[in-house]
Amino acid sequence: MKKFMNSVDTVLTESLDGFAAAHADILVLGEEHKFIRRKMLKPGKVALISGGGSGHEPLHGGFVGRGMLDAACPGQVFTSPTPDQMLAAAQAVDTGAGCLFIVKNYEGDVMNFEMAAEMSDGVLQVVTNDDVAVENSSYTTGRRGVAGTLVVEKIVGAAAEHGVALPALKALGDRVNDATRSMGVALTSGTVPAAGKPTFDIGEGEMEFGVGIHGEPGRRRDRLKSADAIVEEICAAILGDLDDRAKGPALLFVNGFGGTPLMELYLMYNSARRIFEQHGVTVTRSLVGTYVTSLDMAGCSITLSLLDDELTEWWDAPVHTAALRWGV
Amino acid sequence: MKKFMNSVDTVLTESLDGFAAAHADILVLGEEHKFIRRKMLKPGKVALISGGGSGHEPLHGGFVGRGMLDAACPGQVFTSPTPDQMLAAAQAVDTGAGCLFIVKNYEGDVMNFEMAAEMSDGVLQVVTNDDVAVENSSYTTGRRGVAGTLVVEKIVGAAAEHGVALPALKALGDRVNDATRSMGVALTSGTVPAAGKPTFDIGEGEMEFGVGIHGEPGRRRDRLKSADAIVEEICAAILGDLDDRAKGPALLFVNGFGGTPLMELYLMYNSARRIFEQHGVTVTRSLVGTYVTSLDMAGCSITLSLLDDELTEWWDAPVHTAALRWGV
Repeated sequence: MKKFMNSVDTVLTESLDGFAAAHADILVLGEEHKFIRRKMLKPGKVALISGGGSGHEPLHGGFVGRGMLDAACPGQVFTSPTPDQMLAAAQAVDTGAGCLFIVKNYEGDVMNFEMAAEMSDGVLQVVTNDDVAVENSSYTTGRRGVAGTLVVEKIVGAAAEHGVALPALKALGDRVNDATRSMGVALTSGTVPAAGKPTFDIGEGEMEFGVGIHGEPGRRRDRLKSADAIVEEICAAILGDLDDRAKGPALLFVNGFGGTPLMELYLMYNSARRIFEQHGVTVTRSLVGTYVTSLDMAGCSITLSLLDDELTEWWDAPVHTAALRWGV
Repeated sequence: MKKFMNSVDTVLTESLDGFAAAHADILVLGEEHKFIRRKMLKPGKVALISGGGSGHEPLHGGFVGRGMLDAACPGQVFTSPTPDQMLAAAQAVDTGAGCLFIVKNYEGDVMNFEMAAEMSDGVLQVVTNDDVAVENSSYTTGRRGVAGTLVVEKIVGAAAEHGVALPALKALGDRVNDATRSMGVALTSGTVPAAGKPTFDIGEGEMEFGVGIHGEPGRRRDRLKSADAIVEEICAAILGDLDDRAKGPALLFVNGFGGTPLMELYLMYNSARRIFEQHGVTVTRSLVGTYVTSLDMAGCSITLSLLDDELTEWWDAPVHTAALRWGV
């Protein structure tokens, strides 16, 4: 294992300390590193809280700030945060209008956020499950929540900033999740610091098609194909799943898993855009970059989110976080 | 070699097509992919043009837009762009106030930008050479220009946007370069598509200390040390080179080379910030992310730029590019 670290036990806390110091204008760290919260709270606004295992940076801490999340709870690497983290975060950021938890669909996350929700008043939840690769998976009953979670957090974050109330935010989050589909492919495995070796073995000429963001298996192991062939199959899976809803304006989001350079991500975007547009989708918004990662895994995912005027307006609304910033 | 690509010959052009399509609100591609230019030019403003070999993305194309570059000329991977690219770019973006070329100090780049400058009227140049690792290198007489180039482009870009004239911009660029020092370390080698194999061999327990952004040798090959030990030595090299100027406000920029995740970059930032502040530097601005890369190389560099009120104001000024955006 080759990583910049001092010891396995302190990787996460040292990284969080650096993150908080680098973005002290936007966010502060809760005690015992339990959560990252927005520095300036907005009274009367519904508080958005997300979180999950670490190792997917900038998700979720990088999305804390004006127009997006009020708090994020980082678990250990690829391990759900504990309910006391969500309770502490809710206590720190709820200004009286209630909390919405945004939870990726993994059994540990769902259980722990649910437990925290039951111990709190005025909490609703949105569970994301945008990954069309597999129906059930290593850590999941039902589909996995992956890069589409960013889209839910951005759009619901904008609406919350604008003063939309809790039940409507929950409905909006569910609607965005329902309009969003993703699928990924890995060329290499990431390495969890505490494990000290790659999560899975993969041969020089191979790819894991439909991989999860913890390196969990996808649809199949296959020989590495051309970018166009990979994108063609991912887009077909997404379009097939959306069925006759796959038309009109959409956000195309090509996401790197950590070890894949921008040059390749833009090449994949170019291919995906052409294929989606050939099928009647109009790409009206784009995001290309390394946002929802699996440590140092090489690979990428493609996300398509169907848009309408309302969703486009929330997507475009100002956001000021460590990892996404515009309009401010 | 495991990359998302269709053929070695089209990696760059397909990627540039995707880049231009994804950011069509900000930039347009010149004919024959010779340059990327800002979509909306500002008449009367000095045009800033940079460029260099591809493979360092988002540098330089990702910095084209309001408040930063007017054009960037992408060469083939790790290969200087040709003078006709710079000439075509200058013709496309010069609105009459002249051009400033910002050039990283590599022999090919310096020669080709110089040739283009001699064939044009009203062109001045800033050559960046912020890398303290080695005095001369594989492709360089004198020090290499590395991640500090971003700082020069941002600060000079803000001043140009504000209407500062060409000679003063040249002086400002030289002043920022003179106040900026960088040094990097690699854990793995990147792979050039046309080569098909890693640029250099490196053992499991090794690092290349003082590596260049093309994978060229640094100060020495060493066994991989703790993050704190690596940062301590890099900071000592930077502080030693700045000598008694190393005090007061500064920008600390921790830059990923492509394959290193944010978790590790923030950990390195945490360590570097502590060390610089112990030595009398006050970190007043921060940038942490993957901005000046070497394809998929794992590693990072640390850049320190001394600031004053003027430089801080230009750093904070609005910028709207694909890779850096704030205030707009």
